[in-house]
Amino acid sequence: MTPIHQFRTGITALLALVGMGAVLEFTTSTAVAQQEGRRRRGGAAETAPIEMTPDQIARLTKVANDRKLNVDDLLAAAKTYTPSGRHDEFVLFSSGGQSGQVFAIGVPSMRLLRSIAVFTPESWQGYGFSGLDDPVQERLKINGKSVPWGDTHHPALSESRGEYDGQFLFIGDKANARLAVIDLRDWETKQVVKNPLTVSDHGAAFVTPDTTYVIEGGQYATVLGYGYAPPEEYKKSYRGMVTMWKFDRENGRIDIDNSFALELPPYWQDLADAGKFASDGWFFVNSFNVEMATGGVQKGDPPFEAGASKRDMDFLHIVDWKKAEAVFKSGKAKKINGFPVIMLDTSVAEGVLYFAPEPKSPHGVDVTPNGQYMVVAGKLDPHVTVYSIEKVKKAIADKKFSGKDDYGVPILDFDAVKEAQVELGLGPLHTQFDDKGYAYTSLFLDSAVARWTLGGEYEKMHAEQPWKLVTKTPVQYNIGHLCAAEGDTAKPAGKYLIAMNKWSVDRFLTTGPLLPQNFQLVDIGAPGTTMPVLYDMPIGVGEPHYCQMINVDKLKSWKVYPEVGWNSHTQSLDPRAPKKGQEGVVREGNKVTVNMVAIRSHFAPEHVMVNEGDEVVWRIVSTETTVDATHGFCIGGYNINLSLEPGKFIEVRFIADKAGTYPYYCTEFCSALHLEMMGYFHVKPKAGSAAEEKPTKQ
Amino acid sequence: MTPIHQFRTGITALLALVGMGAVLEFTTSTAVAQQEGRRRRGGAAETAPIEMTPDQIARLTKVANDRKLNVDDLLAAAKTYTPSGRHDEFVLFSSGGQSGQVFAIGVPSMRLLRSIAVFTPESWQGYGFSGLDDPVQERLKINGKSVPWGDTHHPALSESRGEYDGQFLFIGDKANARLAVIDLRDWETKQVVKNPLTVSDHGAAFVTPDTTYVIEGGQYATVLGYGYAPPEEYKKSYRGMVTMWKFDRENGRIDIDNSFALELPPYWQDLADAGKFASDGWFFVNSFNVEMATGGVQKGDPPFEAGASKRDMDFLHIVDWKKAEAVFKSGKAKKINGFPVIMLDTSVAEGVLYFAPEPKSPHGVDVTPNGQYMVVAGKLDPHVTVYSIEKVKKAIADKKFSGKDDYGVPILDFDAVKEAQVELGLGPLHTQFDDKGYAYTSLFLDSAVARWTLGGEYEKMHAEQPWKLVTKTPVQYNIGHLCAAEGDTAKPAGKYLIAMNKWSVDRFLTTGPLLPQNFQLVDIGAPGTTMPVLYDMPIGVGEPHYCQMINVDKLKSWKVYPEVGWNSHTQSLDPRAPKKGQEGVVREGNKVTVNMVAIRSHFAPEHVMVNEGDEVVWRIVSTETTVDATHGFCIGGYNINLSLEPGKFIEVRFIADKAGTYPYYCTEFCSALHLEMMGYFHVKPKAGSAAEEKPTKQ
Repeated sequence: MTPIHQFRTGITALLALVGMGAVLEFTTSTAVAQQEGRRRRGGAAETAPIEMTPDQIARLTKVANDRKLNVDDLLAAAKTYTPSGRHDEFVLFSSGGQSGQVFAIGVPSMRLLRSIAVFTPESWQGYGFSGLDDPVQERLKINGKSVPWGDTHHPALSESRGEYDGQFLFIGDKANARLAVIDLRDWETKQVVKNPLTVSDHGAAFVTPDTTYVIEGGQYATVLGYGYAPPEEYKKSYRGMVTMWKFDRENGRIDIDNSFALELPPYWQDLADAGKFASDGWFFVNSFNVEMATGGVQKGDPPFEAGASKRDMDFLHIVDWKKAEAVFKSGKAKKINGFPVIMLDTSVAEGVLYFAPEPKSPHGVDVTPNGQYMVVAGKLDPHVTVYSIEKVKKAIADKKFSGKDDYGVPILDFDAVKEAQVELGLGPLHTQFDDKGYAYTSLFLDSAVARWTLGGEYEKMHAEQPWKLVTKTPVQYNIGHLCAAEGDTAKPAGKYLIAMNKWSVDRFLTTGPLLPQNFQLVDIGAPGTTMPVLYDMPIGVGEPHYCQMINVDKLKSWKVYPEVGWNSHTQSLDPRAPKKGQEGVVREGNKVTVNMVAIRSHFAPEHVMVNEGDEVVWRIVSTETTVDATHGFCIGGYNINLSLEPGKFIEVRFIADKAGTYPYYCTEFCSALHLEMMGYFHVKPKAGSAAEEKPTKQ
Repeated sequence: MTPIHQFRTGITALLALVGMGAVLEFTTSTAVAQQEGRRRRGGAAETAPIEMTPDQIARLTKVANDRKLNVDDLLAAAKTYTPSGRHDEFVLFSSGGQSGQVFAIGVPSMRLLRSIAVFTPESWQGYGFSGLDDPVQERLKINGKSVPWGDTHHPALSESRGEYDGQFLFIGDKANARLAVIDLRDWETKQVVKNPLTVSDHGAAFVTPDTTYVIEGGQYATVLGYGYAPPEEYKKSYRGMVTMWKFDRENGRIDIDNSFALELPPYWQDLADAGKFASDGWFFVNSFNVEMATGGVQKGDPPFEAGASKRDMDFLHIVDWKKAEAVFKSGKAKKINGFPVIMLDTSVAEGVLYFAPEPKSPHGVDVTPNGQYMVVAGKLDPHVTVYSIEKVKKAIADKKFSGKDDYGVPILDFDAVKEAQVELGLGPLHTQFDDKGYAYTSLFLDSAVARWTLGGEYEKMHAEQPWKLVTKTPVQYNIGHLCAAEGDTAKPAGKYLIAMNKWSVDRFLTTGPLLPQNFQLVDIGAPGTTMPVLYDMPIGVGEPHYCQMINVDKLKSWKVYPEVGWNSHTQSLDPRAPKKGQEGVVREGNKVTVNMVAIRSHFAPEHVMVNEGDEVVWRIVSTETTVDATHGFCIGGYNINLSLEPGKFIEVRFIADKAGTYPYYCTEFCSALHLEMMGYFHVKPKAGSAAEEKPTKQ
């Protein structure tokens, strides 16, 4: 049966009960045929090429003129419009910034397909609204206190051999230095780990080519392990860090016990990228504020933004992580706040960490698909700087150092490791790659995307000179990150690029003083200087920072849960899930267990009677197996709302602390008799309690 | 200065500080010119009608064929595509269902412009994350306990003379029977009122033609005032209600002291609509479960969905609200849980309440633009039933009653008040109107939108017979509400209609077991049988129920706050807002007041020193006046995040209960030196506390 058939069957069965069966049965087949006719797009008949008649051209031209569209607009519309039932080619997984969530967006239609709740409770998804011991609320605690929001920055799709494999998504919380794991079978967050060393971070998450580790870089130096020191002790007591979270792919969880960190100088480490192929086993982190400015405009010192921008060079951190892993495994890490840290002196002694000079307060470091080059954009320098891994390895072997920093870390000679510098424009931030030997860099101050050529083995892929600017496309306005299709992997797909513009100013309607961001879709399909903006997508649900774009064929998401009674927290069948026939209420002392089954259009049982003060354990399972037949479950006034996708089981626990008669109902419109899918939760007052006296007529 | 000029000027000033001024100054003018060229769309040169050349037609045809688009797709694309910088014609304000929020969507582009946080804290908007006494967290408490989510159902734009005036938006929370007020100057929620009579509701919000009152209907009957009664006492003790919240437009707040409710029989009241013109002074509420079924499938009784669907007729509730207001003002209401309620016997005695029979479990009641007809869709009946207000008034005057219900309410004779019945199809739910004398009804089971003709004075507006089905357009799938442009007002705009489909099944990529809903844009611009679906918009951030579509010209939203130092909760200048020069920290005993100013790209002060255990009052003002120059402010680990739009002032209070050194930073990417916009909050440990021993090296 198709989903629609299943849906109709469910409705028919119910309506038969209420005397509507016959009339419905009669018309159902017609309705289904209509629906399926519409759905059968893309079949042979409809893929026949069109040729427009003069009349059709006239109609199209009239619509264009009525709406003041030009021919470029019509082309852009045709390149992005995705008819009903046709699926997008790519999905963009975008951080939601300080909304704490992740957004999934279809490309090229630029439609927001779904939000995934991560660090901020979200009631539509029932994320954090299942009563006492709610697993979400538990995992969002820091030092025992609830911190129910995050500032998501950099999503990282899991990779196999440097390519996205579509299995997991990692995302960091800058505000609270946390890392979350999302399972892309059911698009739910499964784990949140808190970094015990630092308050906030920035450089999470980035994966090694087989997702052996998830890298979390730091940012604002602190006293590692939640310590205290006044600003005068900055250089002595403050430190940066980078953490290597071991990923257990089998369990789909971070393996905290096999994770470790590296102590770093109190420069503000920024983004990271892992090497691959030629650079496999290494990762790279850039930094700013090697000046170690501590602000103090009140005392007449330069403010942070000036003090941290004085020097011409900051330090690219070059980490031999396979060596670091060996050092950790050999027991040479020390524990800070219970977490193993390879201290700076050990990293220097063991050859784990090197620096290379990098121009002026860089923001992004990005490794080319072949792993041979690392591209750094110094945001206060008009160039990108390209480093060669071969040159880095040789410089290390040859000890081509220009000195050491204050903490003893050897600094590689800039000219010895530099491959090229390419002048692009003002405020270069981040770089992505395509399948034609081009790189793309966001220019914040220019508000533009620059296309430039790679050299080396990429030279044969394009018609231009290597290491040269090819063209710039203006974007609106103030681009931060950018994202090409699979553009940070070993096999970029080309075709589409997203400019993640931080300001929209006048692009959309005024939505009050708080405006959306603007994701612009850029067509990078043609080589050379043609690179038009196709679409403006307002982002008014958060402030995304970075995103990754994956081909939809790589995603193997579940349409329904594998078995009825599924616990999505453990990703397994839950033996506690009630089965049909087990519906009812069981009392043991003052503990009441409700065994509930939900299926269109009723909850069984339909009345639950407890006494004021009882502990209530409410077990609810959806026995639906039809795609999209999601139910919700809420108890008014009791702060409980669940999303019960087909097959899901959830256990809720709470104290019936307020007497009264409370409706519970299905919060997800599930059928024609959805409003009738309800019941009553009766909390009988204790003798003498306020609710015993019915206040109906006073 | 244009916003972009202002932005550039700010950046230039900062970069001058760090030695980049000259190079930036040189190129800024070029960049601005590029931007403005792009923005000057819609000027005379670009509005010249196009005529496509054969080459352009060939290019467009090639794109269409590459993407397997047909000519209808190209037409739909041209009707919806909205180029960069061009604004939408309408805004859809949609409830977000159990997400607790409201979504604003541009039409015809179908782009989500913004989410507005209402019942669920949301960190991007800083909604509920300002520490102790946070106004949002306070207003979300029920009986002293936090209930930080809602199930938003029906938005209502404020009206003047029955037309949207663009000033306020009201939205109900079904799960907890609350009503919120959003101010459309800054798109922020200003007030949440809790209904003291009932646990949950459904029929909020609907306004009277001048927004004198906001109507909140009930749904599942309970013991009014949070009372308790077992199901056996249903008929005796359970009641429905409808509440009339008085709106004070001057203050932009519900005036609780002048609000009141009507007791109703324990039928499940559903949606409401207020009369206008001929029906001004009346409102209408429909109901289902007049059977007063109480479920009990475990005892062998029919389940709720069957028990509540047995009878052929339910009751349309007809309320003379001007009379009810007079009754309330004359002191005839009784208090339940402290709230004035006009009891059923009073309503009957005073002629406030009448019933009319309505077929089979209706869901929607909708008044025609001229106020003469009320359209009811019985969801288990294939017709819509049209009532005439003149016939109702006459039947009341003539006492044409067919009896009384169990509670003494007079039932008007069906044939005496019925104007027409129109057979449309299966599962009719809701009706909207256009500017051509057509009505549109959603058909849930048919998954279709029906267009049908109105009679009476509308007859001259269309070419068809009155009260007849004209055409049906299939939608995908299972439409609930629908919304035509200003289609529930005195002056519908026609042109566009939204089908709010509850299931998407196969329309979009599988996003795990939880799928988006599907808003389909339907072109209702042409009369007769042509009514194509133009666009599918996935809604993956909540489950909307109803929406209203307003012409953008009616919105007069603020681009920035009117003055620097604005308190958005009071909508006035806040004397506590620090001014430039007042930045700093003031200590009084163990209370520390921080006076902070935020402007690109720094916070002043940059260091705040307190002692563990201090009470901290943090006052922060953004002195920005540039459109879109929003800053964020968070203190890592302290669960605080603010959204500081230009001019906004916020006061935060918290206890510095954990020693350590905490970075605070700007959470909204504001400039090239955004990452440098930070400072340190130093909480000096008490003697002997854990953090006094720095854990750096153990």
